Amino acid sequence: MSVVVHSPDAAETAEWRARLAALLPEYTVEPMLEARRPEAVRYAVVWQPGNGQLARFPGLRAIVSLGAGIDHVLADTALPAGVPIIRTVGRDLTQRMREYVALHVLRHHREMPALAAAQAAGRWEQIVPPPATARRVGVMGLGNLGAEAARSLAALGFDTAGWARSPREIEGVRCFAGAEGLSPFLARTEILVCLLPLTPETRDILNAELFARLPRGASLVNAGRGAHLVEDDLLAALASGQLSHATLDVFRQEPLPPGHPFWAHPGVTVTPHIASMIDPETGGRIVAANIRAFERDGTVPDLADAARGY
Amino acid sequence: MSVVVHSPDAAETAEWRARLAALLPEYTVEPMLEARRPEAVRYAVVWQPGNGQLARFPGLRAIVSLGAGIDHVLADTALPAGVPIIRTVGRDLTQRMREYVALHVLRHHREMPALAAAQAAGRWEQIVPPPATARRVGVMGLGNLGAEAARSLAALGFDTAGWARSPREIEGVRCFAGAEGLSPFLARTEILVCLLPLTPETRDILNAELFARLPRGASLVNAGRGAHLVEDDLLAALASGQLSHATLDVFRQEPLPPGHPFWAHPGVTVTPHIASMIDPETGGRIVAANIRAFERDGTVPDLADAARGY
Repeated sequence: MSVVVHSPDAAETAEWRARLAALLPEYTVEPMLEARRPEAVRYAVVWQPGNGQLARFPGLRAIVSLGAGIDHVLADTALPAGVPIIRTVGRDLTQRMREYVALHVLRHHREMPALAAAQAAGRWEQIVPPPATARRVGVMGLGNLGAEAARSLAALGFDTAGWARSPREIEGVRCFAGAEGLSPFLARTEILVCLLPLTPETRDILNAELFARLPRGASLVNAGRGAHLVEDDLLAALASGQLSHATLDVFRQEPLPPGHPFWAHPGVTVTPHIASMIDPETGGRIVAANIRAFERDGTVPDLADAARGY
Repeated sequence: MSVVVHSPDAAETAEWRARLAALLPEYTVEPMLEARRPEAVRYAVVWQPGNGQLARFPGLRAIVSLGAGIDHVLADTALPAGVPIIRTVGRDLTQRMREYVALHVLRHHREMPALAAAQAAGRWEQIVPPPATARRVGVMGLGNLGAEAARSLAALGFDTAGWARSPREIEGVRCFAGAEGLSPFLARTEILVCLLPLTPETRDILNAELFARLPRGASLVNAGRGAHLVEDDLLAALASGQLSHATLDVFRQEPLPPGHPFWAHPGVTVTPHIASMIDPETGGRIVAANIRAFERDGTVPDLADAARGY
């Protein structure tokens, strides 16, 4: 019986393979593209598996996504039907995401881009925003990562709201739900954080029509997926002043191509998909534990719902 | 009976005067330098009063510092002896400071200066720091502002310690005290936050000898006072790599003079003394309430200890 591992980055694949081989001695652990006996493969641990690759394993019991999202797996047009997909969500992942969200919401709130420009010009310019208690922030997407990020923002003192497809309750966070909850949520949100899963419904959701429902001068932090954002609509909203700033960790094309207008835009902070990463060291333990639990029980708490898309 | 108001900034003096006049109708509220009947002055509400000014008021019952620190009052060489000094510490002040500290500690932790340089160069460079749980941060000074900042860092997941002159207990924060506690505190601190009061003992405390006791590559956030920092020692520590970055909100001379090496230093983030400000709107209410309470009871909880210096 074997476990195969794949990431588009060969070095990363090698790292994960070594880590999982050490943690799962009862399995042969191989790079997916080098699997010697496809019929022996029971688990595929993947980030962006190539199209059609997973269909080569007839005895596959589960696919393990190396992340909280499964959109990169569902993108496979030849994905074997009915094979459960296990999401990888660990304390490190939620911890890193809440740090990223707290950092960038605070940066927007305290107008760091303007302060950095003032320093670059050698200008002593005291910009004094209201306290966070008077700043209305909102998190779209209240899964593990979104709920934890919203809680952290509320703990920092922000007037925090959240929005999700279905109703949620989070202490200290005003929760909105569904299509009818979206407009009131957006109307009150000065700093918008996107942590939605990528599904057909949420693709392109960050568009001109949504930006127009935010208060003028609002800002955006996108740590969901690149395909949530209509890039040209963002550029237009920044140009018109409808949005004041955007911090983006994810892009339609990654790495963000050289010469892309985001790189040099004064209203855009680019971070290279580092908001929250699973590293083999701690992530390996979660993956190994999930594989063992699934083998034993036929299910795990972090099982994704392929029909729902997350 | 009158209350006099003074800030080196005339517009600010006028704002405070208007606000306090509205809140304290039982007093005449005047700019300190224009007090018509010095013998009628009961309270002086000041930020950096000129030397010798406060000695002109024989009936002064208390001095109100427009801030948490009283060093700017004690700097008066003709300060009338025995007049109590009331510090102004409100929820907005602690809220703003904990935001500032959280923002800048997260910026250092997540290597935002390096990420910003990569963006400026159009470089997709994934820098992945450990989660905050594996990052050791330390706050020097555990008064109202420091204790609250340390609590916020711990809540964000940081491995947080604190240091103060005398022993303190703060849940979730490992507290060190006194001269013998300083070395172990520094030895474990990767990101050091200074929120000390300025006293003869803490003047110049951020110097080469202290930097040498931090782990190599540590960083500094100074939101205390400019005189805590020996500027040349910081420049040397950045040049040698002993320190990796410094974020400074306070300076020996403010505004930071044009041409000062901090402005263009890639290892220094300059913010123009905006970490935590008291504005007349909410601060006025605190000052008015403190004056009324002092008039009634002869004391207030935020009374400073002039002998101790804070």
